[in-house]
Amino acid sequence: MALAEKILKGDIKAASRLMRDIDDEMDSATDELKVLYPQTGRAHVVGVTGSPGVGKSTLVDKMVEVLRRDSKTVGVIAVDPTSPFSGGAILGDRVRMQRHSTDEGVFIRSLATRGHLGGISRSTHDVIKVMDAMGKDIILVETVGVGQDEVDIVNAADTSIVVLVPGLGDDIQAIKAGILEIGDIFVINKCDQEGADRLEQELRIMLEMGQKSTDRWTPPIYRTEAIKGEGIEELVAGIQRHREVLQQEGLHQKQARQRARYEFLEILKSSLMKKLLQRLSKNGELDRIVDAMVKREKDPYTMAEEIIHKILP
Amino acid sequence: MALAEKILKGDIKAASRLMRDIDDEMDSATDELKVLYPQTGRAHVVGVTGSPGVGKSTLVDKMVEVLRRDSKTVGVIAVDPTSPFSGGAILGDRVRMQRHSTDEGVFIRSLATRGHLGGISRSTHDVIKVMDAMGKDIILVETVGVGQDEVDIVNAADTSIVVLVPGLGDDIQAIKAGILEIGDIFVINKCDQEGADRLEQELRIMLEMGQKSTDRWTPPIYRTEAIKGEGIEELVAGIQRHREVLQQEGLHQKQARQRARYEFLEILKSSLMKKLLQRLSKNGELDRIVDAMVKREKDPYTMAEEIIHKILP
Repeated sequence: MALAEKILKGDIKAASRLMRDIDDEMDSATDELKVLYPQTGRAHVVGVTGSPGVGKSTLVDKMVEVLRRDSKTVGVIAVDPTSPFSGGAILGDRVRMQRHSTDEGVFIRSLATRGHLGGISRSTHDVIKVMDAMGKDIILVETVGVGQDEVDIVNAADTSIVVLVPGLGDDIQAIKAGILEIGDIFVINKCDQEGADRLEQELRIMLEMGQKSTDRWTPPIYRTEAIKGEGIEELVAGIQRHREVLQQEGLHQKQARQRARYEFLEILKSSLMKKLLQRLSKNGELDRIVDAMVKREKDPYTMAEEIIHKILP
Repeated sequence: MALAEKILKGDIKAASRLMRDIDDEMDSATDELKVLYPQTGRAHVVGVTGSPGVGKSTLVDKMVEVLRRDSKTVGVIAVDPTSPFSGGAILGDRVRMQRHSTDEGVFIRSLATRGHLGGISRSTHDVIKVMDAMGKDIILVETVGVGQDEVDIVNAADTSIVVLVPGLGDDIQAIKAGILEIGDIFVINKCDQEGADRLEQELRIMLEMGQKSTDRWTPPIYRTEAIKGEGIEELVAGIQRHREVLQQEGLHQKQARQRARYEFLEILKSSLMKKLLQRLSKNGELDRIVDAMVKREKDPYTMAEEIIHKILP
């Protein structure tokens, strides 16, 4: 029996195996994903983003606890270890795993992929698909919020949670740039620390300023002390409320289209480049191109245009 | 006169303008880069990477000071603000600019690009090209070292500096994964802090373990206190020494080929996807694909394969 069929029957080992194959960019993984695809689109995907040190992992861990009490099945994806400097997710994963590893309703996966053509964004989406097909109700995607790929991942979530802490240099003027559009829900974690009130006030003012009269959702701000489990139930209820608003207002459909579009282009890009790279390598063309570049005989922009003109005349 | 010609004549405003056009992914920028390309390949590109908070900006600032004393012209590229959460480079840029803004031998640029198809990696390489063509001797590229794109940028540098600090959770076991291959030079900044000796010892042991008998370069470890300017001259001398070894051993040529290959594939990818996206949008095909995905009538993997088969039969 193929992996996909086993996964649809609830085989957890098969799911792990497929995720490894996705990591390794194996062609067979794509065939399995084709089978799973019709069974996806049911899970609610929640992005949890914030700078290093805001306590995302603890927050996610406590959210899992609350969700499990509500009998929700949960998938957790930690996207981080693209950084060879932190290795964070590997350690963090281990810590989290200890608590929930015996719980069949929780599936945790760290993405250590350093994909060459596909990149972290493509593999994250593929792993989300696997968890979705496994029937997980909620999939929490934890990212460190630095880097284009990760921002794309957050954008692709149904609900995006931005986690801040007081006094981490999160000067409100500095974070202004992109934060308002991205967050559906804001969390001030470590809210017992000095500066929490000020951070909340400033954030609220900025959210009000950014609010349009046509907006159907006002991003709420939750205060948590994740390490003590405080404020987590309210946060989880907030996610549920956001999900309901999305569905009532038909926004969910719009979001689903945007995400489908993005996913498709990612898949197209990585598959196309893989095939094109094989061709260019096989007939020695890539070597000749590199030669010409190194000798400064010809520029890469023109050579790229020539190839593109051949395949898309 | 076109921007490229002005840049080759030393026009700084034209260089800034072209970098903005690169940020905005304007087609005209590519035409200018074609003209600049033959004049590139002379600068020594130095990647400076490390987690947030290790003091990269201060280190870079002090390195500029030392390099300028040696009458070297310098380009600085800060790659960071992809993060809507930090805005770090925008502020940092301003601070640095104050010191060096009146110095014609220094050109500083923050990359705030959140490119859609090209990504930060492509624009960084393009901006390096501009500074290279401007005749800068050394180009320092500061990245936060998280995310695939940034790792790629570091990999593409002639000399990669990895900055660590004691006691920032940089547990040596955790950073083991990818750090050894990436760093040509290691810096322990804030070396007055507790744990510096231990960090250096552990790092040294790991570097020795990772060393192959065929390696022609043993990554040195420098201790700095960037804020006081201590250890910076030694570090800058270390970069020069690395550059000489690269050239003596013919490694520079090998590196140049690897970088050319990577750059070409990035350019090919972004240009190809741009054109393909235009086509798919124009004839309504992308909408139909998204429809089929949302309704779960057809999976994106198969539809991507169909398109690829048409253009690369």
